[in-house]
Amino acid sequence: MSSTAGQVIKCRAAVAWEAGKPLVIEEVEVAPPKAMEVRVRILFTSLCHTDVYFWEAKGQTPVFPRIFGHEAGGIVESVGEGVTDVAPGDHVLPVFTGECKECPHCKSEESNMCDLLRINTDRGVMLSDGQSRFSAKGKPIYHFLGTSTFSEYTVVHVGCLAKINPSAPLDKVCVVSCGISTGYGATVNVAKPRKGSTVAVFGLGAVGLAAAEGARASGASRIIGIDLNPSRFEAAKKFGVTEFVNPADHDKPVQEVLAEMTNGGVDRSIECTGNIKAMISAFECVHDGWGVAVLVGVPSKDAEFKTHPGNFLNERTLKGTFYGNYKPRTDIPGVVEKYMNKELELDKFITHSVPFSEINKAFEYMLKGEGLRCIIRMDG
Amino acid sequence: MSSTAGQVIKCRAAVAWEAGKPLVIEEVEVAPPKAMEVRVRILFTSLCHTDVYFWEAKGQTPVFPRIFGHEAGGIVESVGEGVTDVAPGDHVLPVFTGECKECPHCKSEESNMCDLLRINTDRGVMLSDGQSRFSAKGKPIYHFLGTSTFSEYTVVHVGCLAKINPSAPLDKVCVVSCGISTGYGATVNVAKPRKGSTVAVFGLGAVGLAAAEGARASGASRIIGIDLNPSRFEAAKKFGVTEFVNPADHDKPVQEVLAEMTNGGVDRSIECTGNIKAMISAFECVHDGWGVAVLVGVPSKDAEFKTHPGNFLNERTLKGTFYGNYKPRTDIPGVVEKYMNKELELDKFITHSVPFSEINKAFEYMLKGEGLRCIIRMDG
Repeated sequence: MSSTAGQVIKCRAAVAWEAGKPLVIEEVEVAPPKAMEVRVRILFTSLCHTDVYFWEAKGQTPVFPRIFGHEAGGIVESVGEGVTDVAPGDHVLPVFTGECKECPHCKSEESNMCDLLRINTDRGVMLSDGQSRFSAKGKPIYHFLGTSTFSEYTVVHVGCLAKINPSAPLDKVCVVSCGISTGYGATVNVAKPRKGSTVAVFGLGAVGLAAAEGARASGASRIIGIDLNPSRFEAAKKFGVTEFVNPADHDKPVQEVLAEMTNGGVDRSIECTGNIKAMISAFECVHDGWGVAVLVGVPSKDAEFKTHPGNFLNERTLKGTFYGNYKPRTDIPGVVEKYMNKELELDKFITHSVPFSEINKAFEYMLKGEGLRCIIRMDG
Repeated sequence: MSSTAGQVIKCRAAVAWEAGKPLVIEEVEVAPPKAMEVRVRILFTSLCHTDVYFWEAKGQTPVFPRIFGHEAGGIVESVGEGVTDVAPGDHVLPVFTGECKECPHCKSEESNMCDLLRINTDRGVMLSDGQSRFSAKGKPIYHFLGTSTFSEYTVVHVGCLAKINPSAPLDKVCVVSCGISTGYGATVNVAKPRKGSTVAVFGLGAVGLAAAEGARASGASRIIGIDLNPSRFEAAKKFGVTEFVNPADHDKPVQEVLAEMTNGGVDRSIECTGNIKAMISAFECVHDGWGVAVLVGVPSKDAEFKTHPGNFLNERTLKGTFYGNYKPRTDIPGVVEKYMNKELELDKFITHSVPFSEINKAFEYMLKGEGLRCIIRMDG
């Protein structure tokens, strides 16, 4: 047991006091973990679009003050009552959705949408007591996604922690926590392209490029990237993308352009934008007889998916995925192993790095659309 | 070789001279098979909705005079040039869609939608020369679906014939040609329910009951039948249906009724009506995380499938199927074997039987919604 176990820890955290305002590095108090909780010392964290989306708080109920962050790697500092799966010193990745191992979803081989610990973007407190474990200046600070990794220490439900190989470099594998697994898993677990097949990827941000990386690793012979921003095409080549289509360059729907390029349609498509038009195109561009389209991007609340049902009858499949269909505790350690075995390349996703004191720069890079992942070093 | 090989055969056929008018038993001339064609003596045929739909010709270009019929069992009389897969005396089932074994679909393990011999409802002639093999009173009579089994002899492309176990009773296994395989295959090949799961079947006609039979054979523990006609519920029990829902009995959408009955949704659903509302309900009634909905029923041309894309993102799958995903030549002999092994029960689908001379009675039974399959005995 560490000397801090059972004690309140004072440490630095980047607090979002208000929607859209720069984060402020504050001294916060982090309470000890309660039953089934774990306190983790975060070493590296990275910034994902979802942090920015909820920080901007344009489309949802604002929950402030809050500590964002959900892609990270750290070391267990202490554990609460009943925790047996991890111990102090274990290397872990906090995950924004959990795996209780008891509910029908966790017991199903087909689902990763745990009833107890499924992603909840509105809840800013711990499940067990409805309280926050963070406070600053005498006020509670809300959690985000049960992870709040923009803090030197955080408290996480044990069901939201993947215990990983301790020799894996945390400054690299921290990106496995969210976006990379989401895109990579969408391809390898859900779309499952065969060797030699043609795969279309809609949206060439980090998630889309991770989907392309999954297609490359699966032996796809053609990977067609679709994006409205042509500046993304050059970088996408590193991720195995062989051809590019900008829907803005064509007068006809992009699904028709793709069908012409591929003698009737692609074998698999993966939609990573959340735009409803792109979703429909991603479905309608797959080949009849065997085409599978996978939806990854999160749509707006009032979006409506429309197509002629004959497109299904001609033996097309449409599936959605959440977190690449990975179960966080069961499967994520294996994704880290794929990196260790050089099956999955992570370094090329990491385009920036900043010390914790300059975390707002990471937000600036993302808002400008610069690069893919910015690693935030908690010791800086 | 039979003595009739190479000769025109005169025999009886039920000719539809006009849309919606009773068929007339006529003496027709059946030309010998050309290259890659087979002439088959039909022993038993049965009536399917698709025959009635095109006979009524309310929604399509009328093609008359025509010989309908596409569910049947017969014996090869003679073969054309290049036919090596079947020989005179072989027992065969003609199928309305084919398998050329050469095209990308036939070469794909995932598809049965042969490019060359895929169903074509408008074509009334043979592929090789654009001519009919039937004539009566000096006029050509058009083919239907490449099968035209309402004739004592018919000519079929070899790619549309399943060669089956000669000990299988043709008066039973003839129903495997179309509807039963379509429904049964939709469940066992596409929906693939696990043992102990809950399956919803929309539409309790022959295809829907065959889907239920597939669920029963797969070990489903609950099979929920949905139909607007409550008179179908009693008969459906024989096919393993355990519960019934009539959407007309409820004020809320049937998908909500089903979700309440099943703690969040069914594991698998199979839509066999073609009604667009039922299609949407069939998709939205499956459980998040693992639910799979399969569309079988053929929609109208202007139908639009609409749903919130979030329903996919929550890990639901929507697939369409054509002919139960069976490849006619490769897979249908195995379906007949399932009947011989008592895995698949066919007798309960056969509710009526008439001699060929009374074929119009079979149309009357179907128009009244009486029974499931009526066998037409060609020797009568």
